[in-house]
Amino acid sequence: MQGQISGVLAPALTPFDQNLRLDTEKLVAHCQWLLAQGCTGLVPFGTTSEASSLAISERMETLEALVSAGIDPQVLVPGTGTTSIRETIEFTSYATELGCAGSLVLPPFYFRNVSDDGVFAYFQTLIETIAHENLRIYLYHIPSYTQVNLSVDLIQRLQDAYPAHIVGVKDSSGDWAHTEALLKAFPDLNIFVGSERYLLDALRLGGAGSITAVANVNPGHIRVVFDTWQSEQADALQARITLTRGMIEKYPTIPSLKALLAYYRQDPDWGIVRPPLLTLPAEQYQHLIEDAAFVPLTLREG
Amino acid sequence: MQGQISGVLAPALTPFDQNLRLDTEKLVAHCQWLLAQGCTGLVPFGTTSEASSLAISERMETLEALVSAGIDPQVLVPGTGTTSIRETIEFTSYATELGCAGSLVLPPFYFRNVSDDGVFAYFQTLIETIAHENLRIYLYHIPSYTQVNLSVDLIQRLQDAYPAHIVGVKDSSGDWAHTEALLKAFPDLNIFVGSERYLLDALRLGGAGSITAVANVNPGHIRVVFDTWQSEQADALQARITLTRGMIEKYPTIPSLKALLAYYRQDPDWGIVRPPLLTLPAEQYQHLIEDAAFVPLTLREG
Repeated sequence: MQGQISGVLAPALTPFDQNLRLDTEKLVAHCQWLLAQGCTGLVPFGTTSEASSLAISERMETLEALVSAGIDPQVLVPGTGTTSIRETIEFTSYATELGCAGSLVLPPFYFRNVSDDGVFAYFQTLIETIAHENLRIYLYHIPSYTQVNLSVDLIQRLQDAYPAHIVGVKDSSGDWAHTEALLKAFPDLNIFVGSERYLLDALRLGGAGSITAVANVNPGHIRVVFDTWQSEQADALQARITLTRGMIEKYPTIPSLKALLAYYRQDPDWGIVRPPLLTLPAEQYQHLIEDAAFVPLTLREG
Repeated sequence: MQGQISGVLAPALTPFDQNLRLDTEKLVAHCQWLLAQGCTGLVPFGTTSEASSLAISERMETLEALVSAGIDPQVLVPGTGTTSIRETIEFTSYATELGCAGSLVLPPFYFRNVSDDGVFAYFQTLIETIAHENLRIYLYHIPSYTQVNLSVDLIQRLQDAYPAHIVGVKDSSGDWAHTEALLKAFPDLNIFVGSERYLLDALRLGGAGSITAVANVNPGHIRVVFDTWQSEQADALQARITLTRGMIEKYPTIPSLKALLAYYRQDPDWGIVRPPLLTLPAEQYQHLIEDAAFVPLTLREG
C-alpha cells in the first residue's frame, strides 16, 4: 500500500539535561545520525523513548521540532497512544496533519481486563473522529506493559472495518509463535518485530522489518540484514545482530542504551533518564562498556 | 495534622454527552449533591472518574471549574497522577496552588518491575520540584491497575524524607491484611480504604475513612457509619453498606454506577462512558435496576 513504511525503525531515545528537560537539539542530532547510519524510519515516543514519562504537550512540540529541523515526516511513525481517547485523538490527528508516515498506537492501558469490544470501540472512536484519508495506524502490541492483548480476532475486526487506516502491527510480545501467527493471518499488514532477533525469520515470512530499541546503537548492522536477507550471508549477518542484542538484553534496556551513547559520544548527560527509571549504577556501567567492545556495534564503529 | 481530610470521599463519576465531551455543569451538580448527601470530600479524577480517559488539560480545566462553581477546594483531593513525571508535577502543582486539600497520586504505571528506588526517585522529584509548603500527597495504592507495589518500606522512606508532604494513603489493594499492616505501621498517616466494606474495621484501628466508588450512589449510608462507628449500632450500620457494596460488585463498577445515575436521575446520558469502557448491556442494566431496589441506596432515597 502506498505510503506504508518498512525496514529498520528506531524508537529514538529521548535525551534530557540535568534538570530533566528534554534536549530537543540533541534529539534532532541523534535522529539525523540514525537515518544516516541506516534507519529507514524513526518512531519518536516509543516505549524506548520514555514516551510515558513525557507530557503530551512536550511530545507534540517535539514532533513539530523534528519536522522543522528538516526530518522528512514520511520517515516518522510517532507513538501517539495514551490512556486517554481524547489525548490520543488529539495527538494522532496532529501527527497525521503533519504528514507523518503513520502513528504507532497503544491500546488504552490503565483499565484491566478490557474486552475486545472495548478496545475495538476505542480504535473505532479514534478513527471515526479523526476521519482523515491519510490516517495510518500501526497497532502496538506490547502486552507485558499494557496488559491488553490485541488478539488476532480483534486485529481482523479492525482491518475489516478500516482497511485504509489499519496498516500494520508492531509485535513486541517477544513471542515468535505470536509473530508467526500474525504474519500468516495478515499478509496485507506491515508486521514489525519488536526484537531484531527475529528479523530474518520475519522477513522470510513477509514481515515488514523491525522497530527495535537496539537500532538506537546498532542501526547499520541491523539494516544490512534487511537489505541482504535473500543472500547467502543472511544467516551469518543475522547472527551478528543477535549477538549484540543478547549482550544488551543482560542489562536494563533504556538506561543501558543511554549509557552506551554517553560513553561513545563522550557526553555523560546522555545517561540521564526520567524517574521512575534510574541511571545505570557505576558497576553495571563498567560491565556494559566492557561487553560492548566485543560485539558488532554501529555506535562504536560509525 | 492541620489541613488533613478524613471521612467519606467520593471519586466523582465524570458525566459525558453523546459526543463524549465532558459535561462540566452536570459534574458540578453531582459534586454538590454528593456533598449535600454526606460526603466529607471529593476526589475528582480518581479511577472511578475515568481519569485515565481524560486529557490532562481537560482535568485541569475541570478542576478550576469546580472551584469556580463554589466548591471549597479544601474538600477536594484530585487524582493528579499520570505516567509522566512532568505532567504529574504540572497538575499537582496546579491543584496545590488552587488550594486543594491534597492530591491523590498514583505511582507511574507504564514501566513494569520498577524498583522501590525508582518509585522513590519519582516522588522525590515531584516533591522537590514543586517545593510548596501546602503540598499534601495521598499515595494511591492500586496494584491491580498499576502493577506497582507501594510497599510498607517505600512508604516509610517517603514519610521519613518528606513528613510534611506525605500525609496519607488510599489503599485499593482490596486486601484487608495489607490495610491492617498500613494502619499499624503509619499511625500518623491518613489511611483510607478503597472499599467501604472495610470502613468500620479501619476506623477501629485509627483509619481516616474511605475513598470509595460506591459513595457516588450511597454517600448517606456510608457517612452514617463514619459518624457512629463508636456506637452500639455500628456493626448493623456497616452491614447495610456492605450489602449495597456486594450488590454493585456483581456488575462492572463504572458502567453500573453510571447506569444507576441514569436511571434514578431519569437522564440516559449519565450512562455514557468513554472507550475502552462500554455502557452496560440492556439485560445487565435490567438486572442491576431490579437488584438496586432491594438494598439501601442514598441515590434512590435522597
